Amino acid sequence: MHSIEYRVYYEDTDAQGVVYYANYLKFCERARTEYLRLLGYEQKELMDIGVIFIVRKVIIEYLKPVNLDELIKIDTRLNKVKKVSFNFLQTIYNSNLEKICEAEVFCGSINSASKKPMLVPEKLLKNMTKEIS
Amino acid sequence: MHSIEYRVYYEDTDAQGVVYYANYLKFCERARTEYLRLLGYEQKELMDIGVIFIVRKVIIEYLKPVNLDELIKIDTRLNKVKKVSFNFLQTIYNSNLEKICEAEVFCGSINSASKKPMLVPEKLLKNMTKEIS
Amino acid sequence: MHSIEYRVYYEDTDAQGVVYYANYLKFCERARTEYLRLLGYEQKELMDIGVIFIVRKVIIEYLKPVNLDELIKIDTRLNKVKKVSFNFLQTIYNSNLEKICEAEVFCGSINSASKKPMLVPEKLLKNMTKEIS
Amino acid sequence: MHSIEYRVYYEDTDAQGVVYYANYLKFCERARTEYLRLLGYEQKELMDIGVIFIVRKVIIEYLKPVNLDELIKIDTRLNKVKKVSFNFLQTIYNSNLEKICEAEVFCGSINSASKKPMLVPEKLLKNMTKEIS
Repeated sequence: MHSIEYRVYYEDTDAQGVVYYANYLKFCERARTEYLRLLGYEQKELMDIGVIFIVRKVIIEYLKPVNLDELIKIDTRLNKVKKVSFNFLQTIYNSNLEKICEAEVFCGSINSASKKPMLVPEKLLKNMTKEIS
Repeated sequence: MHSIEYRVYYEDTDAQGVVYYANYLKFCERARTEYLRLLGYEQKELMDIGVIFIVRKVIIEYLKPVNLDELIKIDTRLNKVKKVSFNFLQTIYNSNLEKICEAEVFCGSINSASKKPMLVPEKLLKNMTKEIS
Repeated sequence: MHSIEYRVYYEDTDAQGVVYYANYLKFCERARTEYLRLLGYEQKELMDIGVIFIVRKVIIEYLKPVNLDELIKIDTRLNKVKKVSFNFLQTIYNSNLEKICEAEVFCGSINSASKKPMLVPEKLLKNMTKEIS
Repeated sequence: MHSIEYRVYYEDTDAQGVVYYANYLKFCERARTEYLRLLGYEQKELMDIGVIFIVRKVIIEYLKPVNLDELIKIDTRLNKVKKVSFNFLQTIYNSNLEKICEAEVFCGSINSASKKPMLVPEKLLKNMTKEIS
């Protein structure tokens, strides 16, 4: 499991005074990216060899609002890892460690040119698989 | 059912050259807002009487990427309407009318101060209910 | 001169209840893009022949805040047109036609690969030049 | 002077493959907020006593593009501090410490209800003034 903290800035909020519902997906992607980086992944590097990871589906539940200036924590877990797809479970907590959001994110590995499924690079796949065993 | 078109601008895309996954939720909210406006709803007006609509859950599937400058079409349907909650089904099409995204969006009506459930205003509720019958 | 209207949605606002300062630049770009489209420009098309337009400098003044749900109007004027650069003056008005924002936007035409200055395509340049004479 | 680093994620980029021009303003605001926090400022806290800081004007120059995954550094300097207004100079560098962006940001302190100028809270003003002497 991977855990990271982010501060909530004006850019993340809307006129209801709390984080805008689409912006949780930005926090979630930052967290997934940092987790994958630790497992040996660089987005830029993979783009160069023609592999990109895309999101195929998201199920996200908003449990509590989050305010400006709060420090949120995101826990990210790899839930399933196959050769051309993998899923994450992500949970966001506010400063009081109350659960504010849960997301399941279904990703795919594709070729950036053909847009067809492409194997997750071997070393990364191995590291990702270790995470769920 | 409600239908509306949007142009894809640079602001909506990312370095993969297509619309960024979180930004579909922005298009979806614009469409829902315009649909509710037709049914007698003004976000600003409702905020003034203390009712706000929030998103509780989203299930979104990304079927095909969408490019810069494309004109997308969003169909929005009310799927379920109760006194303090309602659901939408939203489908996004590209210029060739291929389905690119499907979302189910679960909303709630709450009091902006107490954050507790609050009845959808009567006239709006009546109009929303008519839509699904 | 070109004029276009946009609705302010939740995505555009922040916890101060008004449009977030960076998001004015999104409205401005949408307006410039539609203006250039009328003059014969398609972003996607130009990207395909290797020309991209970039922003080199912005001077923007925020005169009044704009609220959720307001319908804003953006006037866009070409101010200067040269072979590899051009400037816009953009003015945003709220529903009461009060001036809320003024921006001067300095653009350049470059080759997408080399990132070096590249002539604005001839036909487009001709149409743009006509606009300021 | 204050210095902070940020990672460039997909959310920050556009179809040109680099950071979208409006998003630099988000990075700049994060940096200003963290700088002011060190000087004794909490946005949420000030909102509670009715003071908000707004941006009145921005002059921003884009010198070089920044790519996905780059680690950028933002230097923020208070340039002028008065009782109801203050200016920042902000410089952004890429991973090679090349200057990629320069911004001058003119801020005002106002009352959140009346929207009229309001003194910067005394303790914070004192700390801000020290920074430029």
